[in-house]
Amino acid sequence: MTRVQTSDKRPVLALSGGVGGSKLALGLARVLNHGALTIVANTGDDFEHLGLHISPDIDTLIYVLAGLQNQQTGWGRRDETWSFMAALGELGGETWFKLGDRDLAIHVERTRRLRAGETLSTITSEIARSLGITSRILPMTDDRVRTRVITQSGTLDFQRYFVEAQCLPEVTGFLFDGAAHAQPHPEVLATIRNPALRAIIICPSNPFISIDPILALPDLRSALASSVAPVIAVSPIIGGHAVKGPTAKMMKELGRTVDVLTVADHYRDVIDGFVIDTTDAQLASKLDLPIEVRPILMLSLADRETLAHAVLKFADRLANPTT
Amino acid sequence: MTRVQTSDKRPVLALSGGVGGSKLALGLARVLNHGALTIVANTGDDFEHLGLHISPDIDTLIYVLAGLQNQQTGWGRRDETWSFMAALGELGGETWFKLGDRDLAIHVERTRRLRAGETLSTITSEIARSLGITSRILPMTDDRVRTRVITQSGTLDFQRYFVEAQCLPEVTGFLFDGAAHAQPHPEVLATIRNPALRAIIICPSNPFISIDPILALPDLRSALASSVAPVIAVSPIIGGHAVKGPTAKMMKELGRTVDVLTVADHYRDVIDGFVIDTTDAQLASKLDLPIEVRPILMLSLADRETLAHAVLKFADRLANPTT
Repeated sequence: MTRVQTSDKRPVLALSGGVGGSKLALGLARVLNHGALTIVANTGDDFEHLGLHISPDIDTLIYVLAGLQNQQTGWGRRDETWSFMAALGELGGETWFKLGDRDLAIHVERTRRLRAGETLSTITSEIARSLGITSRILPMTDDRVRTRVITQSGTLDFQRYFVEAQCLPEVTGFLFDGAAHAQPHPEVLATIRNPALRAIIICPSNPFISIDPILALPDLRSALASSVAPVIAVSPIIGGHAVKGPTAKMMKELGRTVDVLTVADHYRDVIDGFVIDTTDAQLASKLDLPIEVRPILMLSLADRETLAHAVLKFADRLANPTT
Repeated sequence: MTRVQTSDKRPVLALSGGVGGSKLALGLARVLNHGALTIVANTGDDFEHLGLHISPDIDTLIYVLAGLQNQQTGWGRRDETWSFMAALGELGGETWFKLGDRDLAIHVERTRRLRAGETLSTITSEIARSLGITSRILPMTDDRVRTRVITQSGTLDFQRYFVEAQCLPEVTGFLFDGAAHAQPHPEVLATIRNPALRAIIICPSNPFISIDPILALPDLRSALASSVAPVIAVSPIIGGHAVKGPTAKMMKELGRTVDVLTVADHYRDVIDGFVIDTTDAQLASKLDLPIEVRPILMLSLADRETLAHAVLKFADRLANPTT
């Protein structure tokens, strides 16, 4: 496996949800210099469960970047055991949201520290560091933002829709409670405004529920708009299908065609360039912005690194067309 | 194994700490009619750890009565796994107090319900019922009482002394913070005042740290003094040694002789009868109260039942000397 580490030390910012986005985030972390990458994690999925503060996207990013993720499930930790969940069921506790024994440690420790007055960003940074992660993983905000899913069956808290109802209710829209008044993390804004910033990369996460909550923070969105660095999105749709999760189902329910054109249109006001899969090459001419066509299905670690490298090069070309 | 179930339906009250006391509590639960036994658990050992409310003595009683206890350690659950603790250590969390993955369920569920406004007694009852326990296990109070250990090295929170410092500091006394104003659970008082009450049994727990916190509740102590039922203590000391834990070490450090005379003297104002081991039979004549001499080292389940039966018969004889 070739690891093509760049000598470029300029900072790079990535916006990411959980499983899908974390694949590219890992690729970026591996090809960039230590400390160059800052990942902004969606916290709209966060919720309180069993009295614990759970941050699913932050945790997935931490586990993936630390090499601790569960390869089978895509979420949670590898070498997981399930004694807690079994015992909780015996006591009559709620078991619809699966928490593995190892995974539980991050929720208990985070909750303890939040109650002691520490910020989610400080706790996230220190946990990431304790697991040997050299990239910065920052929650989009330390304020409370909660994604709610408007469905034909009513408006549901995100995890009730996503896990308990298994994304079955038909979606008509989304709410990001608290987003309008949430302050983006100062380091996120500082990174976006850094004149040396090389690129802002929107990872191939679900646009509606993983990236939109981040873009719903007014100060973050306006900072993006005025950043000198190119903003590049990588499509979560390949050949009319979502690689994982309910992205395609949501698009259909919202009356949109499931293709890269819909994704590009969704990000229209935000991005300077768009990366689509070779499968979708024939749609490139219908897109009125700079397009990079690459194999974007990341199966291997090498795929993640290769795509990360290609996205960075694409950003460099957009920033400086003469090179 | 003979199970000698009594046909007597009168209620019985037991005061108990954790490991030692739970052996006799289990014996009583097995020989008494379903629902006849109420066990009052010490909550002076309770503490907040990792943001969780931990009630060690209640949990030991629940696990022992549900047949879920860890036979090797004496505390915690059988078939335990330790993934949570290992993962917590990796994150830099506190690991001096060992919480198994299965055990964790009771702490998380209890803490969630306490935060939702339920009482410790309600939560305890419902968890016990969900595990099939037919005896009532009640915390001595729903109010906050915290045992603190006065040592040559300063005054320590109980679990810091007991677990972290491994009982090594030399003890000079104990404080039961909150006990003076704590209200005993109303059902405990009602049981003590029940004219049909057959016996009040002080289980062979550590007098200083398991039973004294219960007796430190003024209303509970005065109710005991006026109860019509005989109060019987079973010695935690056999042949000058404690069966388990720091009882003997504490007695020495407090300048007392480690023998049944010291235990009887300690309970002098409270008990009507005292049960000592056959090993200590020669000391019976030095005790100025009714004495029952029995093998009290409970190794097998049959030992627990036999002693429970003997203690109840002793109480019956004290209550009605002519039978």
